[in-house]
Amino acid sequence: MKIKTEIITFSEELILESGENLDSFKLIVETYGELNASKTNAILLCHAFSGNHHAAGKNDESVTGWWDQIVGPKKAIDTEKYYVVCCNNIGGCSGSTGPLEINPASNKPYGKDFPQVSVVDWVKTQKMLMDKLKIPYWHLVTGGSLGGMQALEWSIAYPKSIKKAGIFAAAASSSTQNIALNEVARESIRKDQNFFDGNYYEHGVSPKSGLKTARMLGHITYLSEELMDMRFGRRFQDEESKVDQKVNFEVENYLQYKGEKFSESFDANSYILMTKAMDSYVAGKDQGLNNVMKNVEAQLLIIGFYSDWLYPPERGKEIQLAAMDNDVNSSYVVLEGDHGHDSFLFDSKKYSKIIKKFIES
Amino acid sequence: MKIKTEIITFSEELILESGENLDSFKLIVETYGELNASKTNAILLCHAFSGNHHAAGKNDESVTGWWDQIVGPKKAIDTEKYYVVCCNNIGGCSGSTGPLEINPASNKPYGKDFPQVSVVDWVKTQKMLMDKLKIPYWHLVTGGSLGGMQALEWSIAYPKSIKKAGIFAAAASSSTQNIALNEVARESIRKDQNFFDGNYYEHGVSPKSGLKTARMLGHITYLSEELMDMRFGRRFQDEESKVDQKVNFEVENYLQYKGEKFSESFDANSYILMTKAMDSYVAGKDQGLNNVMKNVEAQLLIIGFYSDWLYPPERGKEIQLAAMDNDVNSSYVVLEGDHGHDSFLFDSKKYSKIIKKFIES
Repeated sequence: MKIKTEIITFSEELILESGENLDSFKLIVETYGELNASKTNAILLCHAFSGNHHAAGKNDESVTGWWDQIVGPKKAIDTEKYYVVCCNNIGGCSGSTGPLEINPASNKPYGKDFPQVSVVDWVKTQKMLMDKLKIPYWHLVTGGSLGGMQALEWSIAYPKSIKKAGIFAAAASSSTQNIALNEVARESIRKDQNFFDGNYYEHGVSPKSGLKTARMLGHITYLSEELMDMRFGRRFQDEESKVDQKVNFEVENYLQYKGEKFSESFDANSYILMTKAMDSYVAGKDQGLNNVMKNVEAQLLIIGFYSDWLYPPERGKEIQLAAMDNDVNSSYVVLEGDHGHDSFLFDSKKYSKIIKKFIES
Repeated sequence: MKIKTEIITFSEELILESGENLDSFKLIVETYGELNASKTNAILLCHAFSGNHHAAGKNDESVTGWWDQIVGPKKAIDTEKYYVVCCNNIGGCSGSTGPLEINPASNKPYGKDFPQVSVVDWVKTQKMLMDKLKIPYWHLVTGGSLGGMQALEWSIAYPKSIKKAGIFAAAASSSTQNIALNEVARESIRKDQNFFDGNYYEHGVSPKSGLKTARMLGHITYLSEELMDMRFGRRFQDEESKVDQKVNFEVENYLQYKGEKFSESFDANSYILMTKAMDSYVAGKDQGLNNVMKNVEAQLLIIGFYSDWLYPPERGKEIQLAAMDNDVNSSYVVLEGDHGHDSFLFDSKKYSKIIKKFIES
């Protein structure tokens, strides 16, 4: 599979939904496969909260992309047929303009001064990317979780620029409980002594403890209760493989390990920005989903997973009902999914078949 | 209602389930109503994780007891008819021997050296209290959540000393997800810069930030998703009443407020001990619930609440099935409950009627 990673700079001013602006910005973009001569085979992947531009294959550090089970040669999203594009969202921490990057105005990292970004902003920058790549429209825009919100927003904001939208394990807005869980995660980051109100770069540190706790909580929400029970039950962790002597159970060890690993690579300001963007998104805003759905021209595929308690299937159904009310061509499928909310990341016979059929229909 | 609060000292050695021991210990005990001449009207209330001995009425600081909706004159647990006893569990932080109290051996607070306590230990100390009070048996032992686990353990450990057990919003053991959530809470406490590996008393501080985050997470698990949605939805917090400018939504403000308040009064070492006790409890241990249920002589009332996702009704059903397998006189009821896991704390017509009937049957 041909993987290409590049940084694309946009020197025009970007006015954000918040009213703030960026004088210029850059996106780190990864592409798979080849754009055909008629430029009709482009697919945009939108990443979830902690994802990035590296969606498939292995990168230079031998890291496998977040959607590698779905995206690749002969896979559900077939890179032999489609030109697949994925970019790190602005505000992220993987190479696109975000808190870690240098603010040209100050020659220092943006840090906590990076403006609040939103799902609407991300879709706007992705549209600018589409134009820059001279792609007339996306054959498909898709993603899971926060990525699914972007796919939905694409169908609303740029109805002429998207043929299909795949909205997986997502919702038209976050629930009260979603917001509450994100606030606990943010609180643990803010109260880390190394956070320095977001100015930790200047101190040469990172609020790793806070990030770790936040991610441990995240992992509980990504897995279902049943899956956790199956995988770990009440088994005790072997003495030799304990990450910490304070740990008793395997599940504690797993969360400790996963949290620690995440805290070494993710940026705390990005964590806060990204979760705030997720919390504040409301498809259709004051107009309401039903009203903006009128304008949607794309065909929608909405997939929920029974084991997902973060964005349970009922949240997908709300989108489907709004689509049906407005005669939008839309399908809504609920799959078992063995991985809770994370099910959207994993291949299964049914899931891949449904995606494939949808792309080719 | 006659409320009496006293501290009772036990000068005999207490050997704990862990193998560690306390040379002596004290319990802070609150009682309501009067013991009758035949001593047949005593009821023991077992508190949940963050509760204490103050179960009903108002104390000297005008604080209402945690089960005041259920316990009092003419209430479901009628203090005009019954002599109701509640004590703070050892390891707690409300006046019974725990990390905050002075270790007679060192003349300093036990702090992090307080031994790990368990549900079995609590029930053992409550049996010692029963003997000291010269009560021949409890007419009823009851509580919700971790309190329900103690009621269940009473029926197993001291079958001759208890006529009835009321086990509400509880389980025979914690689930993997329960353990995982508690571990996130503990992690946030341990990583607070003021925790000092549990030796914070010596530094004259308390790991309040960690406790706050832990409690914020706790509150999400005590409320149901639906309840949260009904109470807060996606409403924004008024500017004037924001506890912090970082807050956008009402639900964030609520959690911030509740977490902050809790962090001012609860002890971090107790938090860790109590949650570890909850995580490690398994009714019947290696023998299994079904095997130890054989010995139960008490009549059981098991109540679950549909809106409880922390200890959902199915967990109560497991106890009921083991009871039925062993011809134990047991009833299992699932109620709506408008308050998620916390539903056991709140009066409702049905709930109170069921408890009353059970006590008087």
